[in-house]
Amino acid sequence: MLRAAPAIGLNKLTASEIARATIAGETTCEDVVKNCLARIDARENEIHAWATVDAEFALRQARELDRRATRGPLHGVPIGVKDIIDTADLPTEMGSPIFRGHRPTADAACVGLVRAAGAVILGKTITCEFAGMTPNITTNPHNTAHTPGGSSSGSGAAVADFMVPAAFGTQTGGSVLRPAAYCGVFGFKPTFGAFNRRGVYPAAESLDTIGLIARSIDDIELISTVLELRPASTPQTLDRPPRIGLCRTPMWDKAQPETVAAIEDAAARLAKAGATVREVALPYEFTGLRNAARETVNNYERAAAMAWEWNTHRDHISERLRKRIEIGRAMSHGEYLAALQLGENRRAQLLHVFQDIDVLLTPSANGEAPRGLGETGDPGFQAIWTILHTPALTLPTHRSPNGLPVGIQLVAPRYDDRGLFACARWVWQQLGAPELLGYRG
Amino acid sequence: MLRAAPAIGLNKLTASEIARATIAGETTCEDVVKNCLARIDARENEIHAWATVDAEFALRQARELDRRATRGPLHGVPIGVKDIIDTADLPTEMGSPIFRGHRPTADAACVGLVRAAGAVILGKTITCEFAGMTPNITTNPHNTAHTPGGSSSGSGAAVADFMVPAAFGTQTGGSVLRPAAYCGVFGFKPTFGAFNRRGVYPAAESLDTIGLIARSIDDIELISTVLELRPASTPQTLDRPPRIGLCRTPMWDKAQPETVAAIEDAAARLAKAGATVREVALPYEFTGLRNAARETVNNYERAAAMAWEWNTHRDHISERLRKRIEIGRAMSHGEYLAALQLGENRRAQLLHVFQDIDVLLTPSANGEAPRGLGETGDPGFQAIWTILHTPALTLPTHRSPNGLPVGIQLVAPRYDDRGLFACARWVWQQLGAPELLGYRG
Repeated sequence: MLRAAPAIGLNKLTASEIARATIAGETTCEDVVKNCLARIDARENEIHAWATVDAEFALRQARELDRRATRGPLHGVPIGVKDIIDTADLPTEMGSPIFRGHRPTADAACVGLVRAAGAVILGKTITCEFAGMTPNITTNPHNTAHTPGGSSSGSGAAVADFMVPAAFGTQTGGSVLRPAAYCGVFGFKPTFGAFNRRGVYPAAESLDTIGLIARSIDDIELISTVLELRPASTPQTLDRPPRIGLCRTPMWDKAQPETVAAIEDAAARLAKAGATVREVALPYEFTGLRNAARETVNNYERAAAMAWEWNTHRDHISERLRKRIEIGRAMSHGEYLAALQLGENRRAQLLHVFQDIDVLLTPSANGEAPRGLGETGDPGFQAIWTILHTPALTLPTHRSPNGLPVGIQLVAPRYDDRGLFACARWVWQQLGAPELLGYRG
Repeated sequence: MLRAAPAIGLNKLTASEIARATIAGETTCEDVVKNCLARIDARENEIHAWATVDAEFALRQARELDRRATRGPLHGVPIGVKDIIDTADLPTEMGSPIFRGHRPTADAACVGLVRAAGAVILGKTITCEFAGMTPNITTNPHNTAHTPGGSSSGSGAAVADFMVPAAFGTQTGGSVLRPAAYCGVFGFKPTFGAFNRRGVYPAAESLDTIGLIARSIDDIELISTVLELRPASTPQTLDRPPRIGLCRTPMWDKAQPETVAAIEDAAARLAKAGATVREVALPYEFTGLRNAARETVNNYERAAAMAWEWNTHRDHISERLRKRIEIGRAMSHGEYLAALQLGENRRAQLLHVFQDIDVLLTPSANGEAPRGLGETGDPGFQAIWTILHTPALTLPTHRSPNGLPVGIQLVAPRYDDRGLFACARWVWQQLGAPELLGYRG
């Protein structure tokens, strides 16, 4: 029997579209994977999104799924895994020479859960060194002279470049939402703790959160369902327009013109579409969060977590990270505890901010992706929500005058991740368009 | 030159005494290690405290320390490491055939930190399977027909049997304080998050806490200082007798006569010694914590964390643990979130319980170590403090009519770990005696 030539363009489908098509038997997992691999072949020289792609392993998983009688909710969906997340079948190198060739014994929880649901692990995406601020080699698909953001650099770039429909990232400051915003795709950080972190290299354990980067809200909700051991359910929608709090945050002076324009345009158009939009100021006590999150907690917990690398491989830690560790080691313990307690007290206070508000509308990042690959951008606008443990989603709703993506961030109260999806879906219906999503070159 | 024969009985010293003696040059690290190894040789056949002891590796570390010019605060202190905590130089087998021979790439944070402070990693102590409730082979040094408790079974038994002065454990329900209480030594669980968990196999990440088992409060404070990156400091003492809340908890009906007697005797003698002692009832909202902690959060997070083992090695998981995972996988997500929020709300409420109280005095366990090795005992009296994230310490102050150890538990407000040490030191001065500590046979 003659086998039909593989369909083309399957790499452009979303995860939900792929799962629907493979479950219905309209396409094979193998063809999906082949299309993703072909896209990687064509573009990886420029994008450098992948630390490891094992084509044979990816195809083996796909063929095995094609033979399987039972089909999970992610049947045949290729997923990229940030290279600080353990995979039993692929190296996990942490973006550091210290872990070159390192092969974990077990899959991380998130990897094991999506594999059991039918996903194909396509490869490991490039991370900044130990998910920190020292850049790696990934470029921004929209303009390779610009950073893709970090530290989930490869996950942001690979999804934006249609190499894979979805990828895992991790956020300790702003490492999921910033690359997603810079690369023009959706990025989601759930409520702290929602996705089990077993097998993820810890940057700062009281902040680290696994997140998702994808090209549709449906995909993020679908994969979240799997990671939370929830049964598949109909995507959340609103039965009325949302009540939106426009939150400029204490860092509004860092917002560049393209971010100011995006936020104000979004607020105006959403109000016009029927949403209640009112300005919400964070009380003055929130001002210290950015430093508490980025500097104090991060540096102290880094210093403790990396004791082994510090003892045995100090020369192979970048100077930038070494400095952070030195600051953490020298920090007074009282300063660390005060930062932790500031976060905890502000989390309690935040409930009042959400009185009569479904979601906050707030900048995703200072502005478009900065030019140059020597920095991954400022995590300030993401970091305050990380230490507040709230679910947060960036939507690729705008473009800068340079044609680079500019996101808007929606933030919901802790544990209301599903409410966030519903609001985000409504917002995307008003502001979204296919041409805003990723890089279609 | 003739080398003096090694001093004997160095294994009976506390960690603080060892560090003082090695730093002063009064003994060598090598002699200390040899004494511990000799005790293990003599007793391990009966106690089964160790998953791995690598005598050569231990002696190599000791000799290297003896040659070193700089001496850290734990210079020459042998430490036992629970076998779910990663060590780059020793296997880490998780008490499971799935990880037989597993050798991690890196040391856990706690291991790296004590090594940098001069500790000698003596070996890996036996753990219940994946730090759960399925017993392993360790016996109680006081009576080998009785359980040592779990899941840090080997750590409790090894410290009580004078094989090592201190050991790491982990507590998700009651896995540090229960074996310490059953074996008649001190067991300490710090405020949640105080000791960095990088490299520790997660049981339930919103509960897991690294703890310490030792034969002196000074040792626990000394090692805590190292793990918290704090400079060495004078041990905490009180300048007035403590204000003690006698807290019978909602599980008082589970307290066996020996526990009731210990708590009531302690309360009476401490009051006589000058402490303010008053009964403190936990508000009724605390009643659900035991199940929330032990069952709901634990089972759900277990199920997520162990996805890889579930996917690939299900037949090598004990039936008991498989059942917990099945319950976790079938649980409604809302039930899990409700349990998390119950814990969080009670933590806020607990601040009021501590009004005018320095520490709570509460049972460490239902009673003496149960007879038989088929169960590790009931974690209820430990588990409520685990989900409340409070620092807690068990002190080996009493004996049952059978001559087995019975502990009392002191609990302080979150982040007041140092205040807990000060109160505990005062309490031990009133109630303690050398013959209560460990098994001197």
